[in-house]
Amino acid sequence: MKYEYLTNEDLAVAVESYIAVLKSGGLAPKTETVPVAEAAGRITAHAVYAHICAPHYNASAMDGIALMASVTFGATETTPVRLTEDQFIQVDTGDPMPEITDAVVMIEDVIRDGDDVLLYTAAVPWQHVRQIGEDVCAGDMILPSYTEITPAALGAMLAGGVLEVDVVKAPVVGIIPTGDEIVPPCTDPAPGDIIEFNSTIFSGILQSWGAVPRVYPIVKDIKEDIISAMEKAVAECDAVLINAGSSAGRDDYSSLAVSTVGRVLYHGIAIKPGKPAILGYADAKPILGVPGYPVSGIIVLDQIFRPVVEIMTGRNLHRQTVIKASLGRVMLSPLKYREFVRARVGLDENGNYIATPLNRGAGVVTSFVKADGIIDIPQDCEGYEAGDTVDVTLLRPKADIDNTLTIIGSHDPLIDEVIDVLKIENIDSVVSSSHVGSMGAIMAIKRGEAQMGAIHLLDEETGGYNDSYIAKYFPNGGVKLEKGVKRVQGIMVAKGNPKNIRSFADLKKEGISYVNRQKGAGTRILCDFLLKQNGMSPSDLYGYEREEFTHTSVAAQIASGTADAGLGIYSAAKTYDLDFIPVCNEEYDFLIDEKAFSDEKVQKFLSVLHSDEIKERLKRMGGYETWD
Amino acid sequence: MKYEYLTNEDLAVAVESYIAVLKSGGLAPKTETVPVAEAAGRITAHAVYAHICAPHYNASAMDGIALMASVTFGATETTPVRLTEDQFIQVDTGDPMPEITDAVVMIEDVIRDGDDVLLYTAAVPWQHVRQIGEDVCAGDMILPSYTEITPAALGAMLAGGVLEVDVVKAPVVGIIPTGDEIVPPCTDPAPGDIIEFNSTIFSGILQSWGAVPRVYPIVKDIKEDIISAMEKAVAECDAVLINAGSSAGRDDYSSLAVSTVGRVLYHGIAIKPGKPAILGYADAKPILGVPGYPVSGIIVLDQIFRPVVEIMTGRNLHRQTVIKASLGRVMLSPLKYREFVRARVGLDENGNYIATPLNRGAGVVTSFVKADGIIDIPQDCEGYEAGDTVDVTLLRPKADIDNTLTIIGSHDPLIDEVIDVLKIENIDSVVSSSHVGSMGAIMAIKRGEAQMGAIHLLDEETGGYNDSYIAKYFPNGGVKLEKGVKRVQGIMVAKGNPKNIRSFADLKKEGISYVNRQKGAGTRILCDFLLKQNGMSPSDLYGYEREEFTHTSVAAQIASGTADAGLGIYSAAKTYDLDFIPVCNEEYDFLIDEKAFSDEKVQKFLSVLHSDEIKERLKRMGGYETWD
Repeated sequence: MKYEYLTNEDLAVAVESYIAVLKSGGLAPKTETVPVAEAAGRITAHAVYAHICAPHYNASAMDGIALMASVTFGATETTPVRLTEDQFIQVDTGDPMPEITDAVVMIEDVIRDGDDVLLYTAAVPWQHVRQIGEDVCAGDMILPSYTEITPAALGAMLAGGVLEVDVVKAPVVGIIPTGDEIVPPCTDPAPGDIIEFNSTIFSGILQSWGAVPRVYPIVKDIKEDIISAMEKAVAECDAVLINAGSSAGRDDYSSLAVSTVGRVLYHGIAIKPGKPAILGYADAKPILGVPGYPVSGIIVLDQIFRPVVEIMTGRNLHRQTVIKASLGRVMLSPLKYREFVRARVGLDENGNYIATPLNRGAGVVTSFVKADGIIDIPQDCEGYEAGDTVDVTLLRPKADIDNTLTIIGSHDPLIDEVIDVLKIENIDSVVSSSHVGSMGAIMAIKRGEAQMGAIHLLDEETGGYNDSYIAKYFPNGGVKLEKGVKRVQGIMVAKGNPKNIRSFADLKKEGISYVNRQKGAGTRILCDFLLKQNGMSPSDLYGYEREEFTHTSVAAQIASGTADAGLGIYSAAKTYDLDFIPVCNEEYDFLIDEKAFSDEKVQKFLSVLHSDEIKERLKRMGGYETWD
Repeated sequence: MKYEYLTNEDLAVAVESYIAVLKSGGLAPKTETVPVAEAAGRITAHAVYAHICAPHYNASAMDGIALMASVTFGATETTPVRLTEDQFIQVDTGDPMPEITDAVVMIEDVIRDGDDVLLYTAAVPWQHVRQIGEDVCAGDMILPSYTEITPAALGAMLAGGVLEVDVVKAPVVGIIPTGDEIVPPCTDPAPGDIIEFNSTIFSGILQSWGAVPRVYPIVKDIKEDIISAMEKAVAECDAVLINAGSSAGRDDYSSLAVSTVGRVLYHGIAIKPGKPAILGYADAKPILGVPGYPVSGIIVLDQIFRPVVEIMTGRNLHRQTVIKASLGRVMLSPLKYREFVRARVGLDENGNYIATPLNRGAGVVTSFVKADGIIDIPQDCEGYEAGDTVDVTLLRPKADIDNTLTIIGSHDPLIDEVIDVLKIENIDSVVSSSHVGSMGAIMAIKRGEAQMGAIHLLDEETGGYNDSYIAKYFPNGGVKLEKGVKRVQGIMVAKGNPKNIRSFADLKKEGISYVNRQKGAGTRILCDFLLKQNGMSPSDLYGYEREEFTHTSVAAQIASGTADAGLGIYSAAKTYDLDFIPVCNEEYDFLIDEKAFSDEKVQKFLSVLHSDEIKERLKRMGGYETWD
């Protein structure tokens, strides 16, 4: 049975009816009693009332003497009242008020005269007394239901004589990974194996929502096994997530398992990614069929399961920050779906947010690591033009976004190393770097999407780097060029150079397969220059159209044996233990928006870039020269 | 030895030098290795690099046939290429690309002709192939140092073959509670006992910062015991907090213990509360002397210890939201100190934040439960006028503040019950209620500090409630009055009425001690009316000046035997098992800013106020009548 979507339901409608069905089935928070000392961060299941008053006794609020105020009545500056030993008792701050006293006179106002004291002011009853219940009174409500217990609230409860508290019991959510190709995390998967990391991602998400994940062993695509795994999980947990294999081409028994154990309310929601989601339940237990691609899974959890977990945990989990951002580029979207697109978000010179959509591949989990937010594109919307304003739900604290240094452009691991050193020096440092090639850097700086761009652009006529491009694309100035490093580019080939490639011209030989970089990449421009220099054309390179976005991904293709050669930097070849035929030394520099140049974040980046620590790291990586 | 403050150091200077001394002593995050599956929310100790590529094999991105693209070259719409069985292999999405294939043709473009297939378009090498490393390449940096590990990052690490990760080890922070009067939390403390809840509050705070608290047994004020407790804690923990007894009048060996085991850098910081703080260390281990009052302790942890924990955990813990707010009333502050004042924060009609300072008592921990934020008043500032703009560091999510219904005014437990029911119906509901008396409600509504005010104001001339006050204070309208409940007010006296009080006039008898409510409270106005009605004057009531802020705190004084009588509502008397002499039925109503009346939050409040659930709760509490 292939995926069959019974429905293509609108997301908002589906979630609302799902919640309604679950609630009418009895979905509600469960309760447990815990000691107050262990209740930090938990959610109250009921209102909490104080059992005793705090303070529970009248106490002196000053160092001084305690007495009955009435014995001081009549005292004035000219006619003091004399008290004998038996009419007062010395007290320190915090001491309980002695029997038959109702006021404290501060030590500073007490004039000693032998064993007696003289008072020049009458006391008012209950002056300088910290009265019973100043903090909280028995019977007062300390916290209402469904309230997060802060550290201060722990203190208030203990002060009020509350030693145990009814809190919402964390719901246990079973996670069933399924699929014939799925294998547990490992370092040497066989071709065709799919590493099962979704359950770990889902577990992390569930924990952050206050639920307890329980991951079941991987179940193969065998109908009976999936159904019995589902039966077990539904019996043992408060809710169940069944995660389909990543492959939409595989048999999928998720829906069958849900409908065998309980009921399917929807199968197929009009969202992208996440369409194959199954919204089901057994009694009051939610059962969600989660698509196999990690990004789809995260979106389905976020959009559909989060409101369910809110009910089970009593927590407000929808306090995300949504900002308005201007789109950095055109973005198309299918009319049939509400689409959720991961995006980078940065601030431009004028303090406006700029959102740059990331790789939309549902399998690319790293895009979620890099993403600052999610752009929500409504159904019936074809997408947006560059410059359009969109809503972005932030995935990071807004303060971090506001404080981010954005670097866009050519890829070099050097940038990651600088980011690492910046973080070690200052945990506040936030740098966002995207690999869009050298020409991408120029465009991003022009559009105000980034403060810095990384470029290595060869001028075919002069053989120089970068300067002529800046002159061409920024005729009116407005940018600065900061020299970065010199690095050696070359042809990466398999260890031992089995195809005996000695020069770029050798690449046109029969049986050599090439792997290229994307359009706009400095290394792609270098490739085109080398073609011209050698009197070759793109059709002379088998695989010219095969595009990769980074040096390491080119190296990875060669290491895997699916390509024989590709251009890249020495450090990438070294990482993959490839042979390397040097071609040229190039200048990898940083283009900086002039208005951002004096920005502290930019200056810190540059200072680390030129630091001894980075020089040492570059030495270890190999293939770099610095300018000093 | 009484407290001796050796210094009165400026906070910022003290923290900066403290951090510098600790760092130069070697304070730095420790590292431990954990399985990736257990690393959610942890902080990376080093940069994390991928070990393998993800995907780790070239896979078909479509259902279709895999082939060498070269065999399709020349195919056009008019001249198809015919492929025989041995030239292609059927693949599903996710299947590894078979040997000697480099492209996939979608099933839709494949025309079957017996065992052969016909293709009408040439394939491009690597089309519809999900290439090795599309997600992450071996050698790529997945996360830099000191970065919080999100759920998606767990997936990225596992995808990249990283099964274990070096994370910052949570620092263990020892907490030593000290003081002769300190007792563990209990429900029946003796007079003079101080319940030790600070260590629970501090533990909660430390946990939220990613540290592990270790609470030691309470140590009495015995020099040798305190020193040896300190030695033990310093040996066993990464940092130590020693918490002095609440009483400033007691012997205090904290400083001596710190200087015996290590060194004291500062003793005495120019902040209020928190002045007695001790900033010390032993080797690279921070030791902080924390004042005994809970509010002082929380402020000292927040202002001084948090930056230390940031270093030990590698976490950015200073991402609080700071807003500008207008002060609701005048607020004085001593010139000598930087003061931190807890405040309620609400939005006025125009969307401006209004901050209302709360009780500044350092012992009042519930003020931290009620507080929305902290007003930071610089040293050398005498305070602020009403209407001045101040910075408020929020203690709650800003979304909650923006969504808060603010009710100010007379106290009745009814309000707490409505808040509880609102929370049960909708966890998003946030209501802030302050007890400032009925006249306080009128002033708050006039100033725009609240949407609703609770009032029960007796018109001495007509005997009616509330209307005449509204006519007087809002001559131009702008408010609505929503009828709340009728409730019985009376004289609360000890169980069995030992002083035989039968009427208000009895309160002037010799030996009767009264406890009053604060100025502006409706019940205070009732008291004054009853005085006049009975031909009495304030001096006829012993304790007229003794002011409490709620019905329950008046009841608490009587229950404790320190007062014989006080005016209050029946439910308070019932809670404290007091006898009750009814005096009158009064109308407890809600004054609502007309502009806020249609607000959904106000309407929800009113609908719960008049709900059956509340009627039932009022019945259980006793002494109420509803209007329908």
